[in-house]
Amino acid sequence: MNQPLAIKALMFDVFGTVVDWRTSIQDEMTAFFTPLGIEKDWEAFAQDWRAKYQPSMEKVRAGNREYVRLDELHRENLDELLADYELESLNEEQRDFINHVWHRLVPWKDTVPGLVRLQRRFLLTTLSNGNIALMANLAKNSGLPWDAILGAEVTQSYKPDPVTYTRSMEVMALKPAECMMVAAHNYDLKVARSLGMKTAFVARPNEYGDRQKTDFEADDDWDICCNSMIELAQHLEA
Amino acid sequence: MNQPLAIKALMFDVFGTVVDWRTSIQDEMTAFFTPLGIEKDWEAFAQDWRAKYQPSMEKVRAGNREYVRLDELHRENLDELLADYELESLNEEQRDFINHVWHRLVPWKDTVPGLVRLQRRFLLTTLSNGNIALMANLAKNSGLPWDAILGAEVTQSYKPDPVTYTRSMEVMALKPAECMMVAAHNYDLKVARSLGMKTAFVARPNEYGDRQKTDFEADDDWDICCNSMIELAQHLEA
Repeated sequence: MNQPLAIKALMFDVFGTVVDWRTSIQDEMTAFFTPLGIEKDWEAFAQDWRAKYQPSMEKVRAGNREYVRLDELHRENLDELLADYELESLNEEQRDFINHVWHRLVPWKDTVPGLVRLQRRFLLTTLSNGNIALMANLAKNSGLPWDAILGAEVTQSYKPDPVTYTRSMEVMALKPAECMMVAAHNYDLKVARSLGMKTAFVARPNEYGDRQKTDFEADDDWDICCNSMIELAQHLEA
Repeated sequence: MNQPLAIKALMFDVFGTVVDWRTSIQDEMTAFFTPLGIEKDWEAFAQDWRAKYQPSMEKVRAGNREYVRLDELHRENLDELLADYELESLNEEQRDFINHVWHRLVPWKDTVPGLVRLQRRFLLTTLSNGNIALMANLAKNSGLPWDAILGAEVTQSYKPDPVTYTRSMEVMALKPAECMMVAAHNYDLKVARSLGMKTAFVARPNEYGDRQKTDFEADDDWDICCNSMIELAQHLEA
């Protein structure tokens, strides 16, 4: 791509792009419930939890609900999910522990080595729907070297509302052309490009496992298309 | 002190506590103006700029002005200061460069080694009046290992308004007893303690140089009183 030096900040989608939520939740639920003698399809549980994500944010995006943190939406969705899985007997402490699995998601293998290279040359920020505590704990647990946590809580809005992107850039006092959105989801990059940001697609074709239906590959001529954060670092000469 | 393990997060005042604004500004101004053949008392310039800090925030705290970022207050104060120093001829680009000296302040010598030890054991956040971009750039320039940037911009308020402290803790979903405020200023710790936070005083008796009038030492029985971030790490067994 041309003029990589014009880019000052890389702004990352996190769930699916940086961390593998599906396997992380599946593994944690297996470890949590097996000693309790409870067996379920925990991969489906992870998928079903994630499936409630977009509809729960939609109320906020549509203006029918004040901004609330993703931790709170996750918890409301979890309570529904536990009923669906006939697990209503779990107590408050257990529900709270399970809800915080999102703070403990595990990065894809290439993530940390790629980000460590990238952060020598660029400001790295989140541009995620995760709230600040969630993002900070995730980073602390896994060594994600963010320079700033932006996105939903800082802007009081949820992607793909353009406000989430524009206010995040404004907070950093950066112009769109100085920012590159990094995501495994084409819709995210589409909004970013429409606002003048640079775009990098990192393919995560196994994010949803058997349920993956889209985003196997780039569906537009994004500025960078690659398969890992290490490849992204190579493209950006970091 | 008792029960250091109950503390989950250390929340830091930054200007004066973590970084040496006075010498940093003095050195940068000398380097900037000397080649232009301009000589002034740059230590006084730094002091006079800093002296405009509290009054400029007071309008926001008193509710007479909407929250604006500290970068903006610094710039308004700089424009006044340049007039006071008969330097009105500086152009926009030069003023912008000088205003960003706050993004390039240099840490006290013990800061980075102390924080690196502390961050292995605790969440480290800013609880500063600096805006997010200022704090992020400062950290990037100097290797300050913050897990999250909290304080003024996240809470849309300025210390010592109690809201700045309470909302910062709420963002992290932490109780006051789980948070320790770290500051070189007794007034900051007084507010923190009144809200139930733990308190650590790090003496910076030379912050204001010849103009220092207060905060030579702790003036209350803070949970920890020490003289450097390394001593703080020792107290907290980090």
